[in-house]
Amino acid sequence: MKFLSEILKEKIVELIERVAEKASDPKGGITRLLYSKEWVDTQIELKKIMEEEGLTTYFDEVGNLYGCLEGDKLSEETIMTGSHVDTVVNGGKYDGMYGIIAGIVALGYLKEKYGKGRRNLEVVSFAEEEGSRFPTVFWGSKNFLGCENKEEVEYIEDGNGIVFKDAIHEAGFDFKKSSGNRRRNVKAFLEAHIEQGNILEIEKKEIGIVDSIAGQRRYKVEVVGTANHAGTTPMEYRRDAFYAASKMISSILDKARYYGNPLVATAGFIEVNPNVGNVVPGRAEFTLDIRHTEEEFLKKFTEEMISFMKETANECNVEVQVHMWMNEPPVPMNKEIVDCIEQVCDKKNIEYRVMHSGAGHDSQLIAKEIPTAMIFVPSENGISHNPNEYTDPHYLAKGVEVLIDSIYQLTYK
Amino acid sequence: MKFLSEILKEKIVELIERVAEKASDPKGGITRLLYSKEWVDTQIELKKIMEEEGLTTYFDEVGNLYGCLEGDKLSEETIMTGSHVDTVVNGGKYDGMYGIIAGIVALGYLKEKYGKGRRNLEVVSFAEEEGSRFPTVFWGSKNFLGCENKEEVEYIEDGNGIVFKDAIHEAGFDFKKSSGNRRRNVKAFLEAHIEQGNILEIEKKEIGIVDSIAGQRRYKVEVVGTANHAGTTPMEYRRDAFYAASKMISSILDKARYYGNPLVATAGFIEVNPNVGNVVPGRAEFTLDIRHTEEEFLKKFTEEMISFMKETANECNVEVQVHMWMNEPPVPMNKEIVDCIEQVCDKKNIEYRVMHSGAGHDSQLIAKEIPTAMIFVPSENGISHNPNEYTDPHYLAKGVEVLIDSIYQLTYK
Repeated sequence: MKFLSEILKEKIVELIERVAEKASDPKGGITRLLYSKEWVDTQIELKKIMEEEGLTTYFDEVGNLYGCLEGDKLSEETIMTGSHVDTVVNGGKYDGMYGIIAGIVALGYLKEKYGKGRRNLEVVSFAEEEGSRFPTVFWGSKNFLGCENKEEVEYIEDGNGIVFKDAIHEAGFDFKKSSGNRRRNVKAFLEAHIEQGNILEIEKKEIGIVDSIAGQRRYKVEVVGTANHAGTTPMEYRRDAFYAASKMISSILDKARYYGNPLVATAGFIEVNPNVGNVVPGRAEFTLDIRHTEEEFLKKFTEEMISFMKETANECNVEVQVHMWMNEPPVPMNKEIVDCIEQVCDKKNIEYRVMHSGAGHDSQLIAKEIPTAMIFVPSENGISHNPNEYTDPHYLAKGVEVLIDSIYQLTYK
Repeated sequence: MKFLSEILKEKIVELIERVAEKASDPKGGITRLLYSKEWVDTQIELKKIMEEEGLTTYFDEVGNLYGCLEGDKLSEETIMTGSHVDTVVNGGKYDGMYGIIAGIVALGYLKEKYGKGRRNLEVVSFAEEEGSRFPTVFWGSKNFLGCENKEEVEYIEDGNGIVFKDAIHEAGFDFKKSSGNRRRNVKAFLEAHIEQGNILEIEKKEIGIVDSIAGQRRYKVEVVGTANHAGTTPMEYRRDAFYAASKMISSILDKARYYGNPLVATAGFIEVNPNVGNVVPGRAEFTLDIRHTEEEFLKKFTEEMISFMKETANECNVEVQVHMWMNEPPVPMNKEIVDCIEQVCDKKNIEYRVMHSGAGHDSQLIAKEIPTAMIFVPSENGISHNPNEYTDPHYLAKGVEVLIDSIYQLTYK
C-alpha cells in the first residue's frame, strides 16, 4: 500500500508533465502566451483533466476555465482555488500551472474521499497574469472580479502586431457582454504557487504561508551630463552621468541592505551613452524596483531615495529625472485563512514559515474583494521564469496536502 | 594692409575646408579611414597643397606623405612637424589635420619670408593614428620610426572583412621592404593639435604647451553573481553583480576626484545581464580607463583600485576578474623644446599654459626617439571625434604663429 503523499506526488508530477507537452517550446521551457495555439490546447487538456477528476467544467466569455464540485448545504457559498495558465516566453512548467494542477488534484481527492462538501468547490485556470504577450496583466483575474476594461485592451498589439481583439476571437472567446459583474458567491480564494525565490530553500522549509503581497514602486531614472574625452577632461570639469548613477545606485542599495527584509531594492537595468570605454558617459538611464509590505515605509523610503538622487545629481553637476511608472500598494492576505493554513501545517508537522510574497500574483487582486491566502512551495535555487524552474516532487505533494486539508476546513466543516 | 594673424587665419581656414571636402561623410562630419578612397584623395590633395607652398613632396612605402624644404647649412639635420591624416568614423575637420595644415602653412610662410633655413624642414602627413579601420594604431608614426611590424597587421581585417594587405595595395602602397630602419637625421619633432578637451577654454588660454603625455592603463572588469527575481530574493541572499559594480565604480571615481589633476579615471562602458528591471543582475562587465603623468602614481593607484575591487566583490559575495589590456607608460616631452615654445609665447604675449595631454598622440611614440613637443589650440566645448569638433580661427592662427616662431628658433637660428 502506498502512502497518500506518494500517490499525490506521482499524480501531480504526471499531470504537470502531461500539460507541459502541449506548450513545450523548441527554444527551451514552456511558452504559453494568452490566446495562442499552445494556450488553447492547454486549456482544453486541463478541461479534460478536470472532467476525469469528476468536476463539472465551463469557460467564461474571456476563456477562464472553471472546474466545479457542487456542495450540498450552502449552495450560495463557493470556496475557490487555482492560478494562471499563461507563462512568460521560455518559462517553466510550474509557475501558475502548479496552482491549477494542485487545485484539480485536491478537488478530485476531496470528492473521492468525502463526496460533496457543505459549500461548493471550484478550481480556476485564469487566462492570463504575466503580461507576456500583450501589454496588460491580470486579464484572467480582472475578468473574474469584473474589473476588466475592454477599451483598454481591445486594440493593443502583441510583438507581431496582432491586435488583442483578433487574438481573443481567434481563440474562440470574446469580451464580456456585461462588465462590472463579479460573482458574489465566492467566500474564499486559495492560491498554491511556487515561491520563485530562495527563502524556503535556504531556511529549509517545506511550505510558505503568504500573509501579504509586497507593494511595488518602479522607477525609470534618467541622468544627463556631458559626454567628454576620457583622457582630456579633468575630473573637476566632468559631468559624468554614469558616475552619478553609480553613486545613486550603490547608496540606495546599501541603504536597502541596511534595512533588510521585507524591503528589497533592485537596479536591474542600465543603459549608458555613448557606452565607449574612453568616453566620459553623457547619459545614463536605469531602473529602480522597490518593494515592501508596508505602504508607509515604501512611501518614506522612496521619498528619501528621490531626495538623495537629486542631491547626488547636484553634487555631480548633472541633471536627473525620476519617473515612477508603477505604484502597487501592499496587499494583506486574510488572517483567518492564514491561521487556518498554519493550523493545518502544525497538525501535519510540516516545516513552514509565514512570509510575504515579493512577487505579484492573481491573489493580490482577488484579496481586495475576497478573503484570500497563498501556499508557497520551494523553488530550487530560487529560479523561476526560466526553463530550469524546478520544485522537488516532495514539496509539490506537500503543497497539495496542505491545500487539501485547508480546503477541507473551509468547505466540509 | 592685413595683419599676419588675419592672413594666417584666412589661409588655414581655407585649406582645412578644402581638404575636408575630400572626405565629407553624408552621415555627418569627416570619415577618412586608412587607405580608403577618401584617404587617398586627401593625401593627393595635401601633396598638391604642399607643392603649391613650394615644398618638395614624396610618399614613403606605406603612404606617409612628406613635404620638404632643404636647409643650406646642416644638411644632415631636419626639423619636422605634422600629424595624422586619418579620422575616426564621423569625426571632425581638425583632429590630426590641423597639425598637417599648420605645418604646411608654417613651412610655406618660413620659406617665403626667410628662404632656406640652416637645417632642413619637413612636414609629415602620417598615414594612420586612430585605429578606426583596422585593429592597429600609430601605423604612420611606427613606420616613420621603423618600429612597425608587418606580421602583426598583414592579415588583420576591417569591419567589412577586407584584409590589411589588400587595402594597402588597393591604395597603391606596400609594406616597407627593409624594416627596423629609421631616419636618423630628424633632430626635433613638433606636433600642433587641437586639445580635444576643455581645459584651455575653461581657463581662457589661447595655447597649451604639452610637457608630457599621460600614461594609460585600461581594464576590463567582469563581475559575476547570480541572476534572481527582484521581488522574491531578500537583500541578504542576493549576489547582485551590478550592485557590486556600482560600488566599485563610485568609490574608484570618488577617489580619483579626490586626487584630481593629472589623474583621470573613467568607467565609460557597462553591460549588465540580463538587464531587465525586475531581475537582480547576475553579471556586469565594465571598463576602467586610468591616466596619469607619473608611472609610479599610476602603478600605486591601480594596485589599490584592484585590491579594493576584490574586497568589494568579497563583501558582496560575487566574483570579480580584472583584466588589464593596455598599459602605456607616461611620455615626457623634450624640456628644451617646451622651453623654446614658452619663450615664443612669452615674447608674443600669448595666454598659454603648460599642460599634459590626457589623449594619446603620434608624439608619444616619436618622443621616445626624437626630441618632441606639442602645441595645443582650444577645442570648443572640449568636443572632439565628433562632427561638432570646432576651434575658433583666432586660435587656429595663434597655433600656426607659435609653430612658425618655434620652428624658426630651431631651424634658422
